[in-house]
Amino acid sequence: MNKWYIEQGKDSDVVLSTRVRLARNIEDYPFVNKLDTEKRNELNKSVRDVLLPEDSSLSYIEMSSLSDIQKISMAERHLISPEYTSSSEGRALILSENEDVSIMLNEEDHIRLQVIKAGFDLESAYKKADEIDNILSSKLNIAFDERLGFLTQCVTNLGTGMRASLMLHLPAMTKQGVISRLASTVSKLGLTIRGAYGEGSSHNGDIYQLSNQITLGISEKEALFNLESIAKQLIEQERNARKELVEDVSYLDNIWRSYGILKHTRKISCSEFMELISLVRVGVFENILDIDVKKINELTVCMQPATINAARQENLQPAQRDIYRADEIRKILGG
Amino acid sequence: MNKWYIEQGKDSDVVLSTRVRLARNIEDYPFVNKLDTEKRNELNKSVRDVLLPEDSSLSYIEMSSLSDIQKISMAERHLISPEYTSSSEGRALILSENEDVSIMLNEEDHIRLQVIKAGFDLESAYKKADEIDNILSSKLNIAFDERLGFLTQCVTNLGTGMRASLMLHLPAMTKQGVISRLASTVSKLGLTIRGAYGEGSSHNGDIYQLSNQITLGISEKEALFNLESIAKQLIEQERNARKELVEDVSYLDNIWRSYGILKHTRKISCSEFMELISLVRVGVFENILDIDVKKINELTVCMQPATINAARQENLQPAQRDIYRADEIRKILGG
Repeated sequence: MNKWYIEQGKDSDVVLSTRVRLARNIEDYPFVNKLDTEKRNELNKSVRDVLLPEDSSLSYIEMSSLSDIQKISMAERHLISPEYTSSSEGRALILSENEDVSIMLNEEDHIRLQVIKAGFDLESAYKKADEIDNILSSKLNIAFDERLGFLTQCVTNLGTGMRASLMLHLPAMTKQGVISRLASTVSKLGLTIRGAYGEGSSHNGDIYQLSNQITLGISEKEALFNLESIAKQLIEQERNARKELVEDVSYLDNIWRSYGILKHTRKISCSEFMELISLVRVGVFENILDIDVKKINELTVCMQPATINAARQENLQPAQRDIYRADEIRKILGG
Repeated sequence: MNKWYIEQGKDSDVVLSTRVRLARNIEDYPFVNKLDTEKRNELNKSVRDVLLPEDSSLSYIEMSSLSDIQKISMAERHLISPEYTSSSEGRALILSENEDVSIMLNEEDHIRLQVIKAGFDLESAYKKADEIDNILSSKLNIAFDERLGFLTQCVTNLGTGMRASLMLHLPAMTKQGVISRLASTVSKLGLTIRGAYGEGSSHNGDIYQLSNQITLGISEKEALFNLESIAKQLIEQERNARKELVEDVSYLDNIWRSYGILKHTRKISCSEFMELISLVRVGVFENILDIDVKKINELTVCMQPATINAARQENLQPAQRDIYRADEIRKILGG
């Protein structure tokens, strides 16, 4: 079964993935920071016992059963938060086979339910999250206040407890230097945009995360509608910018050179890889390069440092990893 | 018929070509700087009438019949000196079909006879030059002094009038930073080494010209023997340095990337091309890349700026030329 990130979703020339996350807590327990390990473990098992019988694709993973490499790799794949890798005690993850559903237990809230879909697909990501939420609500006493909505440990999540986000690939707008202006515009609309891999670096592969900020006094539908509307505008803007850019032979040359380097390199860092694959991705969607986009999707996820180490089941040093990365890229691109 | 520079000669991993040049003057005429156009033309025709009947591969070209582009292209191919492109009056060139023999008339001396051979081949380059010299001597009054030897306009050529030189590809020694030390060593041995394309630039494709300096008080044989001895040492030194370098994955990566870029680029300057083809050439001779070395030889000559313009028969602007160069490189390398 293919992982979700290999699939090609709607508008995936610009939207790499859609994520909906719901924060939930159980009334019978105090918030996570007041919960001892024993109680945490009890909570974990009760969520497990509610969900696993309902969906055979789900599995339950004690975080303490994972190596550091495996945990960091999961964070690279956005299955868990970076913070969740720091400590394993009383923590467990419920994960679907294709990794589109991941539920962190005892992260900041008792339950952090996340659904990821390839491409631009807020509807089905939200639908799936809502289904699981309904199961949870039917079997557990989910903390909910008629006036405030869902109760969460941090007030920034109070209300819907929902964070919907889109991973956007914006190489042309980045090259035009319009991202920082964009950031200030979207913040006025209750959204936020930030680099998905390392703030402000040109080596983040031009990937940004656009998400809703407001959870209180707004319905899930409204929040999703706002996000969707802005995203549609950005998709158009990015597409137009790309059309312009690829008219420039220097940019076209950069696309082809990036492809040539990736097909032949014997040693490449993750940051350079992200820079080059970003250009190759534009080349694919602008019909310049004839490469199955699934290969690009797979590479973008699998060439991250810890994900390489997890696949190799050893702790490669950066220099060795750069060689292994080059070997894998050539294998996949047929260099 | 292939031009000489496409052929692969002996030791051509390091020695790109061998050149022997003889400076000769005719007693019946004053030196070139004292010679008016009419007399120059008369001299040109008399040399033509001596040589052309002896060798059907030779042709006679009035320099005034050539465009500036054609002349500069000839200088890029080392068929004429850069100085010879500046004025055409009273100048003519005798050129063999495969361009291994070129005879500049009324350059600094009446006759500047040059023979080029691919690879390391002082013997046959000298033999061919000597044959033509014998024809000239048998039919013309070549200026010769029993005590001094051949008389030349500039004293630095007095004696043998011979300059023998080798084009050396020394990428590994360049990378090791040993060239400037080498320059001072060879000068003590009566030789000189200098960048073949632009002094001291790292973008000269790591190509150097090693030649004899001394023409007076030394026989041709001795001069050739000295040059050959030093060249043999340099060949060994460069080969050993390469063996070391290609053990380094970063260097190996540079070779492969250079190849990947050349195969895919849409726009490339001459200096970058020279830098990359230098690495590719190492890759070919170290059995890393499987490319017919004739393709590399052809590219190295044909991608020079004026040679491109001459082939296109138009005066392309640098930016257009960089695109054309990329197109040609891809065609030849099959990118």
